[in-house]
Formats: sequence, structure tokens, C-alpha cells
Amino acid sequence: MAQDPGAGAKEAPARSGRALCRIGPFEPELGGHLPEVVLAYETWGEPNEARDNAVLIVHALTGDSHAAGEPDEEYRRGGWWHPLIGPGRPVDTERYFVVCSNVLGGCSGSTGPASRDPISGRPYGMRFPLVTIRDMVRAQKRLLEELGIERLELVAGGSIGGQQALEWAVEFPGFARRVIPVAATGALGPQGIGMSEIGRRAIMSDPDWQGGDYYGTGRSPERGLAIARMAGMMTYQSAQGQWERFGRRPATRPALYEEFGGRFEVESYLHYQGRDLVRRFDANSYLYLTRAMDLYDVAAGYRSEQEALSRMESELLFVGISSDWLFPAAEVRALAERARRAGARAHYVEIESPNGHDAFLKDWDAMEEVFRDFLE
Amino acid sequence: MAQDPGAGAKEAPARSGRALCRIGPFEPELGGHLPEVVLAYETWGEPNEARDNAVLIVHALTGDSHAAGEPDEEYRRGGWWHPLIGPGRPVDTERYFVVCSNVLGGCSGSTGPASRDPISGRPYGMRFPLVTIRDMVRAQKRLLEELGIERLELVAGGSIGGQQALEWAVEFPGFARRVIPVAATGALGPQGIGMSEIGRRAIMSDPDWQGGDYYGTGRSPERGLAIARMAGMMTYQSAQGQWERFGRRPATRPALYEEFGGRFEVESYLHYQGRDLVRRFDANSYLYLTRAMDLYDVAAGYRSEQEALSRMESELLFVGISSDWLFPAAEVRALAERARRAGARAHYVEIESPNGHDAFLKDWDAMEEVFRDFLE
Repeated sequence: MAQDPGAGAKEAPARSGRALCRIGPFEPELGGHLPEVVLAYETWGEPNEARDNAVLIVHALTGDSHAAGEPDEEYRRGGWWHPLIGPGRPVDTERYFVVCSNVLGGCSGSTGPASRDPISGRPYGMRFPLVTIRDMVRAQKRLLEELGIERLELVAGGSIGGQQALEWAVEFPGFARRVIPVAATGALGPQGIGMSEIGRRAIMSDPDWQGGDYYGTGRSPERGLAIARMAGMMTYQSAQGQWERFGRRPATRPALYEEFGGRFEVESYLHYQGRDLVRRFDANSYLYLTRAMDLYDVAAGYRSEQEALSRMESELLFVGISSDWLFPAAEVRALAERARRAGARAHYVEIESPNGHDAFLKDWDAMEEVFRDFLE
Repeated sequence: MAQDPGAGAKEAPARSGRALCRIGPFEPELGGHLPEVVLAYETWGEPNEARDNAVLIVHALTGDSHAAGEPDEEYRRGGWWHPLIGPGRPVDTERYFVVCSNVLGGCSGSTGPASRDPISGRPYGMRFPLVTIRDMVRAQKRLLEELGIERLELVAGGSIGGQQALEWAVEFPGFARRVIPVAATGALGPQGIGMSEIGRRAIMSDPDWQGGDYYGTGRSPERGLAIARMAGMMTYQSAQGQWERFGRRPATRPALYEEFGGRFEVESYLHYQGRDLVRRFDANSYLYLTRAMDLYDVAAGYRSEQEALSRMESELLFVGISSDWLFPAAEVRALAERARRAGARAHYVEIESPNGHDAFLKDWDAMEEVFRDFLE
């Protein structure tokens, strides 16, 4: 695992391979002030002499900086894009210097609502300012500067990571040579926003949420966060995929909750996913990150979407997933077309899959092919 | 409004036009015992001399017996199928004697978990036995017998009402001459079950639920039920419909909850729908009725679906809705085809609509045409 190669790492890694970088004070675009922002990040491979071989990988909603790496005790399934990143893999770490950081507002080492506000000395909670996709990208840019990186060979990510990849192309037009936004558009639709809001209401309705000030109280909105995760999972899968995987079969896993009229496998799966997230994720971060996802509009701050898209200088590959419910393939394709009409070098490829939105974390053969074809 | 014409009405109407009928003790098919079941019902039109002009209308999840009737103070939008039922309407009350009853397990006058258990003297709560679609249909049959009705000209309903219409055709093959199951199949898919379960978890995670014994405590799981309703609403609409109706527009209604990063119209709509249901629906009934919807399998108790479907003697019109997410049109059409192959007189018609599952409560021109064509 690479050690921090830049000047920015001023703290010891919190987890194996993870480094922390202070990027200084930060002004979120919608207001507020963060006196001190830390980003947790990991790297793989080495920068070349020209320092022009860097790749930025951007994680999805509940992901973290551990994009690559073989399965180990800490990460039983390895890095979340492990099949795509490594020696001889499409994002070849013998060729590229790969960086992945936990997003601003996250809870896996980077500054977020669970962090201590240096002014008050208490965790921010809901006093944390709203952060946007653009803020996340600007923070990543500061991290890269600290690492001495002045251009990127590639930015790639899926879902909210795909939104960030797109925003990289718009916000810093000359910085990345290539950009792959996977399963993301310039603006989430009302169905996605609605499902996000169901999750947020579940968290905020949980008395253990305590207005966001649950840190150190011995209670946290576990029930609400589990429900939010269940709602999220529904948007990550497709009807076909769920019929194939669960159908109407009875549950085979042990019950996590009191049964009511038996239990279907799909319910059991959702319960387990809910419980699992509670173990590893902060509920307030879930609120902030889903809100950033809803609020993202690539056209925000420009006179039109066309103006925003026409800024892009990178070569882009938009990747749609045929059965995606959250960011429907038709919307991704239409965005790629509008980008082309705005003058961008934008391509579109569609992954045929029954796995819904989640295909970008599952359909490795297809994903590898997409990455190889575009990078070669 | 018709008064109770049968021998069964032994109590005064609880609301205008609503009568109550004691149908006696009831043995739910999955076990348990209900010593005394009451069904609330309404009727329109008059039975003819031969008593062969009766129509049974079956309500959807949160509906009630008020299927018809002009808008009034109590029902500001009129009966829920008001455009379809009345003088000169497709279900012509000058020709038919129309009956609609609140389902067993419901909370609008019929025996359900909020009812007092005559043995303990306390509300049933979660001691109410599981009820199934078949139980609901058997209870309706008993009501009709009390009303002196021995055959039906038509049974029609949408969603969980469509499941009951289908079950009528299977359980009592000679009873109804025609059956219209709208937006329903013989078994809900895993996506629908998953969304139901999100709602149930929200209710059961609400501390005010108190294990179901919230009656008389001054508290009820309002937050949980509102979230359940929000999740339900998502399944009743389509992506296209939500884009057209809400898009990403900011909310125009007053806020019902604390804002977090502004508010989209779709969120505001969901909040209002959630609050509205809390006002008029019992949370435990929501648990029981959604569970009945999940558990329904037309083949249950038979060696195969084919055997179940081959029992049907009614002429059936299956109605699919092109944008239905909960009961996809393709599944409804496939069921109609299997019913035909099993020897049933089954037709299929599809309503083209962006309104999703809810089209059967909205697309009046299309619904009227469907009913008229089939009944004439």
C-alpha cells in the first residue's frame, strides 16, 4: 500500500493504507465555513516523473477511499472497484498513480457532520454546512494539489461518484484528460429524490437521531438509518434482477426483526443490508450526501445546461446501465447527446444487465471492457 | 344513499350511507379465530326481483366502502370510483345494485386490528390474526349472503382490490358472471414486497407503535405510518409521471417538516400524502393489509397456478397499466395468457398512461371505456 507521497499528509493513517490530508479551510458554495477540512485518501501505484499519470477514482454514496486492494480482514470483498484497479487491470497501477478519497461530508475519515467543529469543540451534527457535488470536487482538487498533481489522466466514478466525475469535467475543464461518469446524469429525477427523502425522513423521525446530536449519547438512529438503506437498496436494483435473485422465495437467513406473517428472502436481504450499513456509516453523513445527490444540477451557476456542458474539454465516456432505476439509461444517453451537441467529446456506452444501478459494482466483465476500450 | 336492504344490518351506519353487517364468527385461513366479524358497506341502486343484478366493487389498500357518490363534505372528491359508478355511468346504478364493503382487517368500519376483541375486551392490536386476500373474499361472500345476493353480475377492483376480484373468480367459480381485476396479478413481485416491508419497518420502528398497543395511549405511530405512505406512493407512480408532475421543481406547499437544503415539490407531495393518511388510517391495518397483499398467491392451496386458474368460470377482463411499477403490465398480460391457456375466458386490455399504478384512480376516460366495452 502506497504511503502518502505528497506534502499534505500530516496525520497517521487511521486505517491500513489510509492517509489523511489537511486541505485547510473551506467555503462551501451554498454558505457556511469549515475552518479545517481533512480528506482521507488512499493511493495505488506511483506518480511518474512528469506527474501526468494520475487517476482519480470517486466513490459512491456509502463507499469510501478503499477503491482497490485484494480482499483482506478489513475489507472482506476487497476494494469496491478492485477488479478494475491493480496491476494488469484496466486502471493499471503499474502505469497509473491512482488516488481515491473519501468525500467531503463523508464519515470514513474525511471531514463530515461527525467531525469535531474546531470552534465549538463539539461534533458538527446538523450544524455542518450543506455540501454539494461541486464542493466535493473542489475539495478533491485541493487534495490533488497537496499531492503535487496538476493534471489527471482519468476521473471515474459511479452514481454520486459519476456526478462528481461529470462535475470535474465542467468545473475544471483542462484538468482531466478523460472522464467516465457511470450510471449518473446531470440531475437526479423526482423518483430518486423521493426515495432519498423517504430515507431521510426515516432517519430524522427516529427519536435516537436527537436533532443530529446523537454523538456520544450512546444512542444513534440505527432504526432510521436501516430503513433509509432499505429504501436506497430498492433504487439500486431492477425488477428483473429482484425476480431472479429473490422471487417470492421465503427467507433463508436468520431473522433480524420480529416476523410478521413469515418472511420473504427480499425482506431478509433488505434487513441485512440495513443492519450492515448501521455498523459502518454515520446517519448524518447519509443525510448530507443524499442531499448533495438530490441537489446536484450540472447547469447550476451557468445560464444553461448547454453552457455548462460546452465548458468540458475532457474526452467523456458516459456509461448507462440498461436496467438502472435511479439514473435511467435513457437519461444518461440523452445527456451524452446533449454534451456532444454542446461541443464536448462525449461518447456513450450501455451495459446490458439485469442488476440495475448496482451493475457498476457487479458486472465486472462489462465494466472491464468499458474501461479497457476507452483507455486504450 | 341506499339503506341496508338485507337482514344483516344490525347496527346503525357509522358514517353517512355506511351500514354495518355482522357476518358472525370467522376462521382466517392461516389460523386464529375471530368470534364476531362486522363489515361496513355501502350500496347504490336497488336489487331487481331476480336479485341477479348485483355488482361487488372492491377497494384498494387505503380505500373504503365509499366507491361511489358525488363529492360532499365528508368525501371532498366523491367516491373513489365515482366517475365509473352512478346513473348512466358504466356501472349504471339504475341497472345494477352496487355493493362495496370495507375489507376484513381494514379500519373504516370493518373488523380489524383496531377493533375490540370481544374475549379480552381490548383492541386486538397485533393479536389480530393474519388475514389473506382469500379471507377478505370469503368475508365479502358472507356479507352478500346476508344481503340475499346469490350471484354477481360483476366483481371489479384495482390493486389489492384487483387481487380480491381475481380470487373471487378462483374461490367461488360460479358466483360472478364477470370479473375485472385491474392493475393486479396473482402474486406481487419482490420489488413490491420490498417497498411494503420498508413501510412496515417504518411503522414498527416507531416507538409510538408500542408493539401495536397504541390505542388509547394518546400516541400512535404517525411518523412511521407517514413514511410507509410515502414509500407506497412511490410505487403508485411512474418515472415519466413524476417528471411531468414534479420534475425537479422547488416545493410550493407550506413545509410540514423542518427543511434541509430546500425542498423539492416531489418531497412536499410525499409529506402531504403521508400526513393525510395518518389522519384517516390505522397503522396496524396498514401492516395487516400490506401483508395480505404480499402473501397473496393465486396458486396457494392448489397443486399449480394452472389448476387454480382452470377453476374460473367467470368471463375475466384483466386490465394492465402501461407504466405500472407495482403490478407491471407485462405481468398482468402474462397472467391473462396463462388464464386463457388454463381454459378461462380471459381478456386483456392495457391502459396507456404515464400515471403508473394510480391510473385506475385517475384515467377516467380510459377506465370508463374499459368498463363500458366489457359490460356491453
